[in-house]
Amino acid sequence: MLGAPLTSARAALRVVAAVLLAGCVLRAAVPPAPAPLGAWRDGEARRRIVRFVEEVTTPGGADFVPPAERVAAFDLDGTLWVERPRYIAVEFELESIRARAEREPALRSVEPYRAVYWGDLRWLERLDPRKLFTLFINTHADVPEAAYVEEVRRFLASRRHARLGRPFRDLAYLPMVELIAYLEDHDFRVHIVTGGELGFARTVAEEIYGVPVENVVASAVRYRFRENAAGGEIIRGKLLLFNDEAGKPANIQLHVGRRPILAFGNSDGDVEMLEFAAGSAHPSLSLVLRHDDAEREYAYDDRTEEVRARARRRGWTVVSMRDDFATVFAPPGG
Amino acid sequence: MLGAPLTSARAALRVVAAVLLAGCVLRAAVPPAPAPLGAWRDGEARRRIVRFVEEVTTPGGADFVPPAERVAAFDLDGTLWVERPRYIAVEFELESIRARAEREPALRSVEPYRAVYWGDLRWLERLDPRKLFTLFINTHADVPEAAYVEEVRRFLASRRHARLGRPFRDLAYLPMVELIAYLEDHDFRVHIVTGGELGFARTVAEEIYGVPVENVVASAVRYRFRENAAGGEIIRGKLLLFNDEAGKPANIQLHVGRRPILAFGNSDGDVEMLEFAAGSAHPSLSLVLRHDDAEREYAYDDRTEEVRARARRRGWTVVSMRDDFATVFAPPGG
Repeated sequence: MLGAPLTSARAALRVVAAVLLAGCVLRAAVPPAPAPLGAWRDGEARRRIVRFVEEVTTPGGADFVPPAERVAAFDLDGTLWVERPRYIAVEFELESIRARAEREPALRSVEPYRAVYWGDLRWLERLDPRKLFTLFINTHADVPEAAYVEEVRRFLASRRHARLGRPFRDLAYLPMVELIAYLEDHDFRVHIVTGGELGFARTVAEEIYGVPVENVVASAVRYRFRENAAGGEIIRGKLLLFNDEAGKPANIQLHVGRRPILAFGNSDGDVEMLEFAAGSAHPSLSLVLRHDDAEREYAYDDRTEEVRARARRRGWTVVSMRDDFATVFAPPGG
Repeated sequence: MLGAPLTSARAALRVVAAVLLAGCVLRAAVPPAPAPLGAWRDGEARRRIVRFVEEVTTPGGADFVPPAERVAAFDLDGTLWVERPRYIAVEFELESIRARAEREPALRSVEPYRAVYWGDLRWLERLDPRKLFTLFINTHADVPEAAYVEEVRRFLASRRHARLGRPFRDLAYLPMVELIAYLEDHDFRVHIVTGGELGFARTVAEEIYGVPVENVVASAVRYRFRENAAGGEIIRGKLLLFNDEAGKPANIQLHVGRRPILAFGNSDGDVEMLEFAAGSAHPSLSLVLRHDDAEREYAYDDRTEEVRARARRRGWTVVSMRDDFATVFAPPGG
């Protein structure tokens, strides 16, 4: 009953927004900003970010936040890099599972190897996404973490995105890479907080964003330590922690123990993390990236209804990929 | 069968060690060392520490380790502060549970409130230690983390150790406080890795050792995030992760994702963590604190048989509280 009028109001707002945002003239009029954040256009979003960082880092200022408490939390998929047509981690899983079924024919009758190997997409799509994620991650159980990370590295460097034609590791949004560096230059501790899996996300964080592995909060398996003559090794177990929705603030508490003062997300899975930052006793900034650039990346709004409604209600900063990103990706080989 | 001769050999070694260590003359002959590490005597243990830190921090040296990989892991109870006659965290639990039973008489017939309130030590001691720990920690389930931490803070500041006569927060070993500062000055990231509970250990880490809360790896409850008009809050759940023995390297992997190059422990629960550091691809230092100072602290060897055997076999550095600590505690009010 409540849903209908709200939905129409939202639909109407969306039409208004679409009209407002449609002006190519408006976009062309905003030139790229100077460094830092040179891949951003000099619009309201960039101005809010710069103003916020200046406020919390000005010693003696009313809004000063000590460096130890300058925690920033970034979602990964769809916030720091491309998540379409599939999560890059899912591309990795499909390839890894297929390769394993190639090597071990006996697995071809065991799920999820069977479905992946024979391309039974209907079976895969019928599963609850969380259950599918668990099945995929658990295929690496009993594998040493070092071997798993090596497999992730090879995948990131060698495989390409079909439509965009770049290696997956080049799918990072340049404005976000700049923003992370800008925050770190101002003594923020930037964390990547993702629903994806920890070992995968750590590899991405370190190789692509220069975020240290200890600053990654993610869905995680139970690890175990196996002693051996070579100094022992860490072995992966089965999935233990989910890091999505309300799990994000909970796992930030578990891993970091501090409330972020800046959070950046793009989907409904980030709502609680954005609220967590917004509720800080310090000044805070919650940001939402909108995928509205079909030409340079993708344009889609699914799984964003709640986050966009909250952004309007709570005054969070919505970043438009089309209007706020002067450049989306670093030049090839850059 | 194997146990007997080994045990006698150990007993013999212990006698020899006792004779060697008995010499007060020897002890008096080793003066306190200059700063840094002025609360240490200038013996072999201190020399090994200083040499190791110089080696791994000398740019261009063969043993240089980049700052990002200078991870140090310290056990808490019995390594950084007094663990006798009971773990300080157990003192806290007993007091907290007793106070709760005072406020809520209905709980006085429910375990573990009943046993604690009526002083039924036999019931408590009959339980498996891990089960007792879980029961104690779970009494704080559904409590906001902020309220729990406030209770820990009050306890640390107000309660005293019966025999030593100092507030619990003054039971930190001064040489260890110095060592942590010394390592941090050399761009180590010092972590506290404890079997105790995370919220408690974080409070101790920050208030007493200046170790940031995000650098604590501990047994942990499942947290949840409860949204409310005041920005939401983190609520404690039941115990999820144990951090002892092989759990220590596993949880270091989960929280830090890097192998330590220095580890410091005192009991058999630290063996796997010490091995984890010893197995680093970098030069590493594994240290074991021996409680052999009945006069200034305590002298005991229980739960240390395995760690002392490994130390001998693997050449780990054994630190004698009696011989290597020039000062044990900071002067009162210091």
